[in-house]
Amino acid sequence: MDTMKLLMIICDGMADRPCQELNGMTPLEAAEVPNMDSLAKKGQSGLMDVIAPGIVPGSDTAHLALLGYDPRKVYTGRGPFEAAGEGLEVHKGDVAFRCNFSTVDENMCVTDRRAGRISQETDKLAAALNGIKIEGIEIIFKEGVDHRAVLILRGHGLHPDITEIDPHELCKIFESKHNIPESKKTARILNKFTKMSYEILSQHPVNLARIEEGKPPANIVLARGSGSPPNVPSFTEHHNGLKGAAIVGISLVKGLCQVSGLDIIDVPGATGSTDTDINAKTEAAIKALETYDFVLLHFKAPDLYGHDGDVPGKVDFIQRIDESLEKILELKNTIICVTADHSTPCSAKDHTADSVPVLIYGPGLRHDSVECFNELDAMSGGLGHIRGHELMQMLSGLAGKNPKFGA
Amino acid sequence: MDTMKLLMIICDGMADRPCQELNGMTPLEAAEVPNMDSLAKKGQSGLMDVIAPGIVPGSDTAHLALLGYDPRKVYTGRGPFEAAGEGLEVHKGDVAFRCNFSTVDENMCVTDRRAGRISQETDKLAAALNGIKIEGIEIIFKEGVDHRAVLILRGHGLHPDITEIDPHELCKIFESKHNIPESKKTARILNKFTKMSYEILSQHPVNLARIEEGKPPANIVLARGSGSPPNVPSFTEHHNGLKGAAIVGISLVKGLCQVSGLDIIDVPGATGSTDTDINAKTEAAIKALETYDFVLLHFKAPDLYGHDGDVPGKVDFIQRIDESLEKILELKNTIICVTADHSTPCSAKDHTADSVPVLIYGPGLRHDSVECFNELDAMSGGLGHIRGHELMQMLSGLAGKNPKFGA
Repeated sequence: MDTMKLLMIICDGMADRPCQELNGMTPLEAAEVPNMDSLAKKGQSGLMDVIAPGIVPGSDTAHLALLGYDPRKVYTGRGPFEAAGEGLEVHKGDVAFRCNFSTVDENMCVTDRRAGRISQETDKLAAALNGIKIEGIEIIFKEGVDHRAVLILRGHGLHPDITEIDPHELCKIFESKHNIPESKKTARILNKFTKMSYEILSQHPVNLARIEEGKPPANIVLARGSGSPPNVPSFTEHHNGLKGAAIVGISLVKGLCQVSGLDIIDVPGATGSTDTDINAKTEAAIKALETYDFVLLHFKAPDLYGHDGDVPGKVDFIQRIDESLEKILELKNTIICVTADHSTPCSAKDHTADSVPVLIYGPGLRHDSVECFNELDAMSGGLGHIRGHELMQMLSGLAGKNPKFGA
Repeated sequence: MDTMKLLMIICDGMADRPCQELNGMTPLEAAEVPNMDSLAKKGQSGLMDVIAPGIVPGSDTAHLALLGYDPRKVYTGRGPFEAAGEGLEVHKGDVAFRCNFSTVDENMCVTDRRAGRISQETDKLAAALNGIKIEGIEIIFKEGVDHRAVLILRGHGLHPDITEIDPHELCKIFESKHNIPESKKTARILNKFTKMSYEILSQHPVNLARIEEGKPPANIVLARGSGSPPNVPSFTEHHNGLKGAAIVGISLVKGLCQVSGLDIIDVPGATGSTDTDINAKTEAAIKALETYDFVLLHFKAPDLYGHDGDVPGKVDFIQRIDESLEKILELKNTIICVTADHSTPCSAKDHTADSVPVLIYGPGLRHDSVECFNELDAMSGGLGHIRGHELMQMLSGLAGKNPKFGA
């Protein structure tokens, strides 16, 4: 059997609920999306519970599911994906965190969780912490954008199931505690690291200068989102040798794809925001399909408009994604899947558990009678209701990549 | 995100098959149900396998599923729900039974399984058995309606997996046997209790008087339906803090709701039968929604008409339920779910495994193109096919009560 390539287009948070501003239509219903409609018409539609009915997906757990893993079995926390998204290599057994540079007073009370939104010279602060060892555990620390940073603990006997250091409020920082015996050492190391970060950073020339200038010093690191990379086979092993790549702007999803074993294709102009270069990303995806079996193309902005409750913005951005798909329609020998990682209804301004529409088109594959791509029409589609972690297996099956099970 | 209240209306055994008397329509299709139709039109419909395809639900297992538990994993027997329904507190580790006061001869042969349907002074008989101890196991015993009673064994080392005492025929009673090593003690205690019940009750003044009057003495207790309360988190723990109440007439379902951690709201006139005060129950549900996050409103009668094969009676009762829902339509900020716990087709006169229609309506939530609420229209609904134990999670998700899983 001839095999086909796979293109999965994920419009983050695109799925929605009826909007008053749109006379009860969803943004996707209201948007003019001739290219998505054309794919729906030629292919099959359905609704997808990305994790399971009623479960509100995060972007990380949702993408784990879309890559074919069951997040309820393998997800421990966002730390490793954030760390990978910042360009660090995450290894199995690592425990990783996302961090803030924060300001505390001498009683360890937080006075500014973002250290005055520090944006300069955090690389120098990070360098002062990176590479130290605590009880033989290696500290890997890297600055991120503005006050953000990532931390990896590397060594034997670590486990991510610990409580938070970061009080998320202006009060005394917490002491991390182990939730299970296996994480006792990890909590202790994190507490020691937090203390050391204060000792080292409060004396750092960058901070002494900030104090001089009347700015809050970035005198402590508060870590959160403790997690280890999922203990799973890589994407390629998991999907019968499929070689995959991802084109994605935001670091959390980028990191997740990387940890899962996808190659990351960086596209100039891809920002992970509303100002991203949609066409550049789409063109990069088309090009990547020349060398990869599977390409994940991710657009973040619909989710941002959903969080802002910006209905016209969401409609407009969906239309702009659709315009850029014109060239996708010309792809030969490629199965195209369009979906969302979760719903971010403009009315809820947050992720919800509502199912998402999904379409699958491939040359020579079946079609149903659905003619438009949206939440309502997808209800009567030929795919019925599917689960997120089964989608990838369906796609690789349709693409002829799955071996026969049995004789 | 704003959260909503949840009202689940369960019409016991309402789902049916085509009836010849109704020209091939089901009772729900034939009934005039403008309020349910209105909810279906504004919301989404679907079909639900309450336990799993092909599994014939009991009322207890069905309600366990509807409350969000998987009965195939946690159900052991109806005893604890019967006991709770009679007002006893059931604890984890208890083994509970439903019982009959019966009549046996001196050879322990059953001559009347219901002791002449004894209805007087069973409280005195029960008092003679309640509180005794066997091998340190506490015997908690309480009379029910007519010849019925409930029994709880409380103490260490009990397990409900034993064989029956009650032969369900006019013959010698059985000796209970353990099915697994862990239930050896329980079978032994039950056998001793049965023997003691005979020794105590056959000498009891109430029975001596009955013999005098030529009535069969209630001279033994035959227990059945051995079970322990499901080893599960309470409804509130299981559903992210949802505080729930149930309005339900029949003791089995009442007991199940109570064991699961719902508050029971007793409504004057609620009989759990065809003469129940439908409006009083509906009004109580509306009132309960002022203080509870979740209210379960249960109507038993459609099931009774189904068991009787009474098609017109079933149609009429469904219409009467629908009439009472008029005020439900005025509820603000509330998600309404209407469904059945199982099918009791008038042609089968018993529970069947046929799926049941389900509708979910909530202000601002999605709708599908279904316009009527019945088994046939629900097939093309936007909910597709769902499982009973996932319904509650879907509802709490839609109500904005579920935390995000991941980031």
